Amino acid sequence: MSAEDAATSPGTVRPGGRTARTRAVVRDAVLTGLAEHGYPGLTVEYVAELSGVHKTTLYRRWGNVEGLVTDALDLAGEDTWTPPDTGTLDGDLRALAREVNDTFGDTSAAVVPTAFIAAAFQSERTAGALHSFYTERFARCEAVVERAVERGEAPPGTDAAAVVRAVSAPLFFRAVITREPLGEELADQTSGAVTAAVRAGAYLPAAPGESAG
Amino acid sequence: MSAEDAATSPGTVRPGGRTARTRAVVRDAVLTGLAEHGYPGLTVEYVAELSGVHKTTLYRRWGNVEGLVTDALDLAGEDTWTPPDTGTLDGDLRALAREVNDTFGDTSAAVVPTAFIAAAFQSERTAGALHSFYTERFARCEAVVERAVERGEAPPGTDAAAVVRAVSAPLFFRAVITREPLGEELADQTSGAVTAAVRAGAYLPAAPGESAG
Repeated sequence: MSAEDAATSPGTVRPGGRTARTRAVVRDAVLTGLAEHGYPGLTVEYVAELSGVHKTTLYRRWGNVEGLVTDALDLAGEDTWTPPDTGTLDGDLRALAREVNDTFGDTSAAVVPTAFIAAAFQSERTAGALHSFYTERFARCEAVVERAVERGEAPPGTDAAAVVRAVSAPLFFRAVITREPLGEELADQTSGAVTAAVRAGAYLPAAPGESAG
Repeated sequence: MSAEDAATSPGTVRPGGRTARTRAVVRDAVLTGLAEHGYPGLTVEYVAELSGVHKTTLYRRWGNVEGLVTDALDLAGEDTWTPPDTGTLDGDLRALAREVNDTFGDTSAAVVPTAFIAAAFQSERTAGALHSFYTERFARCEAVVERAVERGEAPPGTDAAAVVRAVSAPLFFRAVITREPLGEELADQTSGAVTAAVRAGAYLPAAPGESAG
Protein backbone atom coordinates (compact mmCIF):
# COMPACT_ATOMS: atom_id res chain seq x y z
CA MET A 1 0.00 0.00 0.00
CA SER A 2 1.29 3.46 -0.89
CA ALA A 3 1.63 6.29 1.60
CA GLU A 4 -1.26 7.97 -0.18
CA ASP A 5 -3.54 4.98 0.47
CA ALA A 6 -2.62 4.78 4.14
CA ALA A 7 -3.35 8.46 4.66
CA THR A 8 -6.74 8.43 2.99
CA SER A 9 -8.20 5.06 3.95
CA PRO A 10 -9.33 5.22 7.56
CA GLY A 11 -10.64 1.66 7.18
CA THR A 12 -7.05 0.40 7.21
CA VAL A 13 -6.54 1.70 10.73
CA ARG A 14 -7.20 -0.85 13.47
CA PRO A 15 -9.06 1.05 16.25
CA GLY A 16 -7.14 1.02 19.49
CA GLY A 17 -4.12 -0.62 17.87
CA ARG A 18 -0.61 0.71 17.52
CA THR A 19 -1.50 2.23 14.15
CA ALA A 20 -4.43 4.14 15.65
CA ARG A 21 -2.27 5.37 18.54
CA THR A 22 0.40 6.62 16.15
CA ARG A 23 -2.25 8.34 14.08
CA ALA A 24 -3.63 10.13 17.15
CA VAL A 25 -0.16 11.20 18.33
CA VAL A 26 0.64 12.55 14.87
CA ARG A 27 -2.74 14.29 14.70
CA ASP A 28 -2.04 16.03 18.03
CA ALA A 29 1.30 17.26 16.71
CA VAL A 30 -0.35 18.52 13.50
CA LEU A 31 -2.98 20.45 15.49
CA THR A 32 -0.32 21.98 17.72
CA GLY A 33 1.71 22.93 14.65
CA LEU A 34 -1.30 24.49 12.94
CA ALA A 35 -2.13 26.46 16.08
CA GLU A 36 1.44 27.69 16.52
CA HIS A 37 2.61 28.26 12.95
CA GLY A 38 -0.44 27.98 10.69
CA TYR A 39 -0.44 25.92 7.52
CA PRO A 40 2.29 27.90 5.75
CA GLY A 41 4.71 27.27 8.64
CA LEU A 42 3.92 23.58 9.22
CA THR A 43 6.63 21.06 8.25
CA VAL A 44 6.96 17.28 8.40
CA GLU A 45 10.13 17.83 10.46
CA TYR A 46 8.14 19.77 13.08
CA VAL A 47 5.51 17.01 13.32
CA ALA A 48 8.25 14.37 13.62
CA GLU A 49 9.99 16.21 16.44
CA LEU A 50 6.80 16.94 18.39
CA SER A 51 5.19 13.51 17.93
CA GLY A 52 8.34 11.42 18.34
CA VAL A 53 7.33 9.53 15.18
CA HIS A 54 10.23 9.17 12.74
CA LYS A 55 10.21 11.43 9.71
CA THR A 56 10.54 8.49 7.31
CA THR A 57 7.40 6.93 8.86
CA LEU A 58 5.51 10.20 8.39
CA TYR A 59 6.58 10.48 4.74
CA ARG A 60 5.72 6.82 4.12
CA ARG A 61 2.24 6.95 5.69
CA TRP A 62 1.13 10.56 5.03
CA GLY A 63 3.23 11.62 2.06
CA ASN A 64 3.59 15.30 2.97
CA VAL A 65 2.14 18.17 5.01
CA GLU A 66 -1.08 18.13 2.95
CA GLY A 67 -1.51 14.45 3.80
CA LEU A 68 -0.94 15.12 7.48
CA VAL A 69 -3.44 17.98 7.60
CA THR A 70 -6.16 16.17 5.66
CA ASP A 71 -5.77 13.08 7.84
CA ALA A 72 -6.11 15.24 10.97
CA LEU A 73 -9.38 16.55 9.50
CA ASP A 74 -10.52 13.03 8.59
CA LEU A 75 -9.80 11.90 12.14
CA ALA A 76 -11.72 14.88 13.56
CA GLY A 77 -14.70 13.70 11.54
CA GLU A 78 -14.56 10.24 13.14
CA ASP A 79 -15.69 11.49 16.56
CA THR A 80 -18.99 10.54 18.21
CA TRP A 81 -20.42 14.08 18.41
CA THR A 82 -24.19 14.26 18.12
CA PRO A 83 -26.30 17.42 17.86
CA PRO A 84 -28.13 18.76 20.93
CA ASP A 85 -31.49 17.19 21.81
CA THR A 86 -33.26 19.66 24.11
CA GLY A 87 -36.81 18.65 23.20
CA THR A 88 -37.64 21.74 21.12
CA LEU A 89 -36.50 23.08 17.74
CA ASP A 90 -35.81 26.47 19.27
CA GLY A 91 -33.69 24.91 22.02
CA ASP A 92 -31.76 22.65 19.64
CA LEU A 93 -30.97 25.43 17.16
CA ARG A 94 -29.96 27.77 19.99
CA ALA A 95 -27.63 25.09 21.40
CA LEU A 96 -26.12 24.55 17.94
CA ALA A 97 -25.50 28.29 17.44
CA ARG A 98 -24.00 28.54 20.91
CA GLU A 99 -21.59 25.68 20.14
CA VAL A 100 -20.34 27.61 17.12
CA ASN A 101 -20.07 30.73 19.28
CA ASP A 102 -18.17 28.82 21.98
CA THR A 103 -15.60 27.77 19.40
CA PHE A 104 -15.24 30.74 17.07
CA GLY A 105 -16.00 33.38 19.69
CA ASP A 106 -13.09 32.13 21.83
CA THR A 107 -9.68 33.12 20.51
CA SER A 108 -7.85 30.02 21.68
CA ALA A 109 -10.62 27.55 20.78
CA ALA A 110 -10.86 29.10 17.31
CA VAL A 111 -7.17 28.68 16.40
CA VAL A 112 -7.28 25.13 15.03
CA PRO A 113 -10.56 25.25 13.09
CA THR A 114 -9.54 28.64 11.68
CA ALA A 115 -6.19 27.17 10.61
CA PHE A 116 -8.01 24.38 8.75
CA ILE A 117 -10.20 26.94 6.97
CA ALA A 118 -7.11 28.99 6.07
CA ALA A 119 -5.22 25.89 4.87
CA ALA A 120 -8.08 25.03 2.51
CA PHE A 121 -7.29 28.19 0.50
CA GLN A 122 -3.78 26.90 -0.14
CA SER A 123 -4.39 23.20 -0.66
CA GLU A 124 -7.04 21.63 -2.87
CA ARG A 125 -6.73 18.40 -0.92
CA THR A 126 -7.36 20.16 2.40
CA ALA A 127 -10.31 21.98 0.81
CA GLY A 128 -11.75 18.59 -0.13
CA ALA A 129 -11.24 17.23 3.38
CA LEU A 130 -12.85 20.33 4.90
CA HIS A 131 -15.82 19.95 2.56
CA SER A 132 -16.21 16.29 3.62
CA PHE A 133 -15.88 17.17 7.29
CA TYR A 134 -18.59 19.84 7.20
CA THR A 135 -20.90 17.85 4.91
CA GLU A 136 -20.84 14.93 7.31
CA ARG A 137 -21.12 17.18 10.40
CA PHE A 138 -24.16 19.00 9.03
CA ALA A 139 -25.74 15.68 8.00
CA ARG A 140 -25.65 14.73 11.69
CA CYS A 141 -27.26 18.08 12.59
CA GLU A 142 -30.23 17.40 10.32
CA ALA A 143 -31.62 15.11 13.05
CA VAL A 144 -32.60 18.30 14.87
CA VAL A 145 -34.95 19.28 12.04
CA GLU A 146 -36.26 15.74 11.54
CA ARG A 147 -37.24 15.56 15.21
CA ALA A 148 -38.94 18.98 14.94
CA VAL A 149 -40.98 17.74 11.96
CA GLU A 150 -42.00 14.64 13.97
CA ARG A 151 -43.07 16.86 16.88
CA GLY A 152 -45.07 19.11 14.53
CA GLU A 153 -42.77 22.10 15.16
CA ALA A 154 -41.61 22.30 11.55
CA PRO A 155 -43.58 21.70 8.35
CA PRO A 156 -42.88 18.36 6.63
CA GLY A 157 -40.53 18.96 3.70
CA THR A 158 -38.46 21.58 5.56
CA ASP A 159 -34.97 21.77 4.01
CA ALA A 160 -32.98 20.47 6.99
CA ALA A 161 -29.60 20.97 5.29
CA ALA A 162 -30.33 24.66 4.70
CA VAL A 163 -31.68 25.17 8.23
CA VAL A 164 -28.63 23.81 10.03
CA ARG A 165 -26.27 25.81 7.79
CA ALA A 166 -28.28 29.02 8.28
CA VAL A 167 -27.86 28.66 12.05
CA SER A 168 -24.06 28.46 11.80
CA ALA A 169 -23.28 30.67 8.81
CA PRO A 170 -23.69 34.17 10.32
CA LEU A 171 -21.31 33.22 13.16
CA PHE A 172 -18.65 31.70 10.88
CA PHE A 173 -19.10 34.70 8.55
CA ARG A 174 -18.31 37.22 11.27
CA ALA A 175 -15.48 35.15 12.73
CA VAL A 176 -13.49 34.38 9.60
CA ILE A 177 -14.67 36.77 6.86
CA THR A 178 -15.86 40.14 8.18
CA ARG A 179 -13.84 39.57 11.38
CA GLU A 180 -16.44 41.02 13.72
CA PRO A 181 -17.07 40.00 17.34
CA LEU A 182 -19.41 37.09 18.13
CA GLY A 183 -21.26 36.51 21.40
CA GLU A 184 -24.09 34.57 22.96
CA GLU A 185 -26.64 37.26 22.12
CA LEU A 186 -25.72 37.02 18.47
CA ALA A 187 -25.94 33.22 18.59
CA ASP A 188 -29.41 33.43 20.15
CA GLN A 189 -30.56 36.04 17.64
CA THR A 190 -29.32 33.85 14.77
CA SER A 191 -31.05 30.70 15.99
CA GLY A 192 -34.22 32.64 16.83
CA ALA A 193 -34.39 34.03 13.31
CA VAL A 194 -33.94 30.60 11.73
CA THR A 195 -36.58 29.09 14.04
CA ALA A 196 -39.04 31.82 13.02
CA ALA A 197 -38.28 31.24 9.32
CA VAL A 198 -38.79 27.47 9.72
CA ARG A 199 -42.17 28.05 11.37
CA ALA A 200 -43.16 30.44 8.58
CA GLY A 201 -42.43 27.71 6.02
CA ALA A 202 -39.53 29.64 4.45
CA TYR A 203 -37.43 26.47 4.16
CA LEU A 204 -40.06 24.55 2.19
CA PRO A 205 -39.30 23.95 -1.50
CA ALA A 206 -40.26 26.98 -3.61
CA ALA A 207 -43.40 26.53 -5.72
CA PRO A 208 -42.59 26.42 -9.46
CA GLY A 209 -41.92 29.94 -10.70
CA GLU A 210 -42.11 31.38 -7.21
CA SER A 211 -38.44 32.29 -7.02
CA ALA A 212 -38.74 34.46 -10.10
CA GLY A 213 -40.98 36.86 -8.11
CA MET B 1 5.01 61.78 4.15
CA SER B 2 6.12 58.17 4.63
CA ALA B 3 5.16 55.35 2.28
CA GLU B 4 2.94 54.05 5.06
CA ASP B 5 0.98 57.33 5.16
CA ALA B 6 0.56 57.43 1.41
CA ALA B 7 -0.80 53.91 1.37
CA THR B 8 -3.31 54.36 4.15
CA SER B 9 -4.58 57.91 3.68
CA PRO B 10 -6.96 57.98 0.72
CA GLY B 11 -7.63 61.65 1.48
CA THR B 12 -4.17 62.48 0.16
CA VAL B 13 -5.09 61.21 -3.28
CA ARG B 14 -6.32 63.88 -5.69
CA PRO B 15 -9.26 62.25 -7.60
CA GLY B 16 -8.61 62.13 -11.31
CA GLY B 17 -5.04 63.33 -10.90
CA ARG B 18 -1.84 61.53 -11.78
CA THR B 19 -1.65 60.06 -8.27
CA ALA B 20 -5.16 58.63 -8.59
CA ARG B 21 -4.36 57.20 -12.01
CA THR B 22 -1.21 55.54 -10.71
CA ARG B 23 -3.15 54.14 -7.80
CA ALA B 24 -5.76 52.63 -10.13
CA VAL B 25 -3.15 51.13 -12.44
CA VAL B 26 -1.33 49.60 -9.47
CA ARG B 27 -4.63 48.32 -8.06
CA ASP B 28 -5.42 46.59 -11.37
CA ALA B 29 -2.02 44.88 -11.31
CA VAL B 30 -2.56 43.78 -7.69
CA LEU B 31 -5.97 42.28 -8.55
CA THR B 32 -4.52 40.45 -11.56
CA GLY B 33 -1.66 39.17 -9.40
CA LEU B 34 -4.04 37.98 -6.67
CA ALA B 35 -6.20 36.24 -9.26
CA GLU B 36 -3.23 34.55 -10.92
CA HIS B 37 -0.94 33.73 -8.02
CA GLY B 38 -2.88 34.36 -4.82
CA TYR B 39 -1.47 36.32 -1.90
CA PRO B 40 1.43 33.93 -1.18
CA GLY B 41 2.70 34.31 -4.77
CA LEU B 42 2.25 38.08 -5.11
CA THR B 43 5.44 40.18 -5.24
CA VAL B 44 6.21 43.88 -5.59
CA GLU B 45 8.30 42.96 -8.64
CA TYR B 46 5.26 41.39 -10.32
CA VAL B 47 3.13 44.47 -9.66
CA ALA B 48 5.91 46.72 -11.01
CA GLU B 49 6.24 44.74 -14.20
CA LEU B 50 2.50 44.51 -14.85
CA SER B 51 1.65 48.12 -13.93
CA GLY B 52 4.68 49.76 -15.51
CA VAL B 53 5.15 51.69 -12.24
CA HIS B 54 8.76 51.59 -11.02
CA LYS B 55 9.53 49.26 -8.12
CA THR B 56 11.07 52.07 -6.06
CA THR B 57 7.85 54.08 -6.42
CA LEU B 58 5.83 51.09 -5.23
CA TYR B 59 8.08 50.57 -2.21
CA ARG B 60 8.03 54.29 -1.41
CA ARG B 61 4.23 54.68 -1.62
CA TRP B 62 2.94 51.26 -0.53
CA GLY B 63 5.80 49.85 1.53
CA ASN B 64 5.32 46.17 0.63
CA VAL B 65 2.86 43.58 -0.68
CA GLU B 66 0.63 44.00 2.40
CA GLY B 67 0.41 47.72 1.68
CA LEU B 68 -0.47 47.07 -1.96
CA VAL B 69 -3.20 44.57 -1.08
CA THR B 70 -4.77 46.69 1.67
CA ASP B 71 -4.79 49.75 -0.59
CA ALA B 72 -6.51 47.73 -3.32
CA LEU B 73 -9.18 46.84 -0.75
CA ASP B 74 -9.44 50.45 0.43
CA LEU B 75 -9.90 51.55 -3.18
CA ALA B 76 -12.59 48.90 -3.73
CA GLY B 77 -14.46 50.43 -0.81
CA GLU B 78 -14.43 53.87 -2.45
CA ASP B 79 -16.89 52.88 -5.18
CA THR B 80 -20.40 54.28 -5.55
CA TRP B 81 -22.25 50.98 -5.13
CA THR B 82 -25.65 51.29 -3.50
CA PRO B 83 -27.94 48.46 -2.41
CA PRO B 84 -30.92 47.46 -4.57
CA ASP B 85 -34.13 49.48 -4.21
CA THR B 86 -36.92 47.35 -5.66
CA GLY B 87 -39.72 48.79 -3.55
CA THR B 88 -40.15 45.80 -1.22
CA LEU B 89 -38.06 44.24 1.55
CA ASP B 90 -38.43 40.82 -0.04
CA GLY B 91 -37.26 42.15 -3.41
CA ASP B 92 -34.32 44.06 -1.96
CA LEU B 93 -33.07 41.14 0.14
CA ARG B 94 -33.48 38.78 -2.80
CA ALA B 95 -31.49 41.13 -5.03
CA LEU B 96 -28.75 41.38 -2.37
CA ALA B 97 -28.51 37.59 -2.03
CA ARG B 98 -28.42 37.22 -5.80
CA GLU B 99 -25.53 39.71 -6.03
CA VAL B 100 -23.54 37.54 -3.61
CA ASN B 101 -24.50 34.47 -5.64
CA ASP B 102 -23.47 36.18 -8.91
CA THR B 103 -20.01 36.82 -7.44
CA PHE B 104 -19.25 33.77 -5.33
CA GLY B 105 -21.25 31.30 -7.42
CA ASP B 106 -19.17 32.22 -10.50
CA THR B 107 -15.68 30.75 -10.47
CA SER B 108 -14.00 33.60 -12.31
CA ALA B 109 -15.90 36.40 -10.53
CA ALA B 110 -15.07 34.80 -7.17
CA VAL B 111 -11.29 34.70 -7.67
CA VAL B 112 -10.40 38.19 -6.46
CA PRO B 113 -12.74 38.47 -3.44
CA THR B 114 -11.75 34.94 -2.42
CA ALA B 115 -8.07 35.91 -2.67
CA PHE B 116 -8.71 38.87 -0.35
CA ILE B 117 -10.43 36.58 2.16
CA ALA B 118 -7.52 34.13 1.94
CA ALA B 119 -4.92 36.91 2.30
CA ALA B 120 -6.59 38.09 5.51
CA PHE B 121 -5.58 34.80 7.17
CA GLN B 122 -1.93 35.58 6.48
CA SER B 123 -1.79 39.32 7.08
CA GLU B 124 -3.24 41.18 10.06
CA ARG B 125 -3.22 44.38 8.05
CA THR B 126 -5.24 42.81 5.23
CA ALA B 127 -7.63 41.36 7.82
CA GLY B 128 -8.16 44.90 9.13
CA ALA B 129 -8.77 46.26 5.64
CA LEU B 130 -11.23 43.44 4.89
CA HIS B 131 -13.07 44.16 8.12
CA SER B 132 -13.32 47.87 7.20
CA PHE B 133 -14.47 47.03 3.67
CA TYR B 134 -17.30 44.76 4.80
CA THR B 135 -18.32 46.98 7.72
CA GLU B 136 -18.75 49.92 5.38
CA ARG B 137 -20.41 47.81 2.67
CA PHE B 138 -22.98 46.39 5.08
CA ALA B 139 -23.62 49.85 6.55
CA ARG B 140 -24.74 50.88 3.04
CA CYS B 141 -27.00 47.81 2.87
CA GLU B 142 -28.82 48.83 6.03
CA ALA B 143 -30.80 51.36 3.95
CA VAL B 144 -32.78 48.36 2.69
CA VAL B 145 -34.06 47.65 6.20
CA GLU B 146 -34.60 51.32 7.04
CA ARG B 147 -36.83 51.72 3.98
CA ALA B 148 -38.74 48.56 4.93
CA VAL B 149 -39.39 49.97 8.41
CA GLU B 150 -40.65 53.23 6.83
CA ARG B 151 -42.98 51.24 4.57
CA GLY B 152 -44.27 49.23 7.53
CA GLU B 153 -42.78 45.98 6.19
CA ALA B 154 -40.42 45.53 9.14
CA PRO B 155 -41.02 46.32 12.82
CA PRO B 156 -39.28 49.48 14.09
CA GLY B 157 -36.14 48.50 15.99
CA THR B 158 -35.26 45.68 13.56
CA ASP B 159 -31.51 44.98 13.75
CA ALA B 160 -30.57 46.08 10.22
CA ALA B 161 -26.91 45.08 10.59
CA ALA B 162 -27.87 41.52 11.51
CA VAL B 163 -30.45 41.27 8.72
CA VAL B 164 -28.10 42.26 5.90
CA ARG B 165 -25.39 39.91 7.19
CA ALA B 166 -27.86 37.00 7.54
CA VAL B 167 -28.78 37.40 3.87
CA SER B 168 -25.17 37.07 2.71
CA ALA B 169 -23.65 34.71 5.27
CA PRO B 170 -25.06 31.34 4.10
CA LEU B 171 -23.76 32.03 0.58
CA PHE B 172 -20.29 33.12 1.70
CA PHE B 173 -20.26 30.15 4.10
CA ARG B 174 -20.86 27.61 1.35
CA ALA B 175 -18.50 29.32 -1.09
CA VAL B 176 -15.43 29.73 1.10
CA ILE B 177 -15.84 27.46 4.14
CA THR B 178 -17.87 24.32 3.42
CA ARG B 179 -17.08 24.69 -0.31
CA GLU B 180 -20.53 23.65 -1.51
CA PRO B 181 -22.28 24.84 -4.69
CA LEU B 182 -24.34 28.05 -4.65
CA GLY B 183 -27.15 28.96 -7.03
CA GLU B 184 -30.06 31.32 -7.51
CA GLU B 185 -32.48 28.96 -5.74
CA LEU B 186 -30.26 28.99 -2.68
CA ALA B 187 -30.00 32.79 -2.82
CA ASP B 188 -33.80 33.10 -2.99
CA GLN B 189 -34.30 30.59 -0.17
CA THR B 190 -31.83 32.52 1.99
CA SER B 191 -33.43 35.90 1.40
CA GLY B 192 -36.92 34.43 1.81
CA ALA B 193 -35.98 32.98 5.19
CA VAL B 194 -34.55 36.28 6.41
CA THR B 195 -37.61 38.20 5.18
CA ALA B 196 -39.87 35.79 7.09
CA ALA B 197 -37.75 36.17 10.23
CA VAL B 198 -37.87 39.98 9.97
CA ARG B 199 -41.66 39.91 9.65
CA ALA B 200 -41.89 37.60 12.67
CA GLY B 201 -39.91 40.14 14.72
CA ALA B 202 -36.94 37.81 15.19
CA TYR B 203 -34.47 40.66 14.62
CA LEU B 204 -35.92 42.85 17.36
CA PRO B 205 -33.81 43.24 20.52
CA ALA B 206 -34.34 40.33 22.90
CA ALA B 207 -36.45 41.12 25.98
CA PRO B 208 -34.36 40.98 29.20
CA GLY B 209 -33.78 37.35 30.19
CA GLU B 210 -35.43 36.09 27.04
CA SER B 211 -32.24 34.69 25.54
CA ALA B 212 -31.75 32.45 28.56
CA GLY B 213 -34.93 30.52 27.61
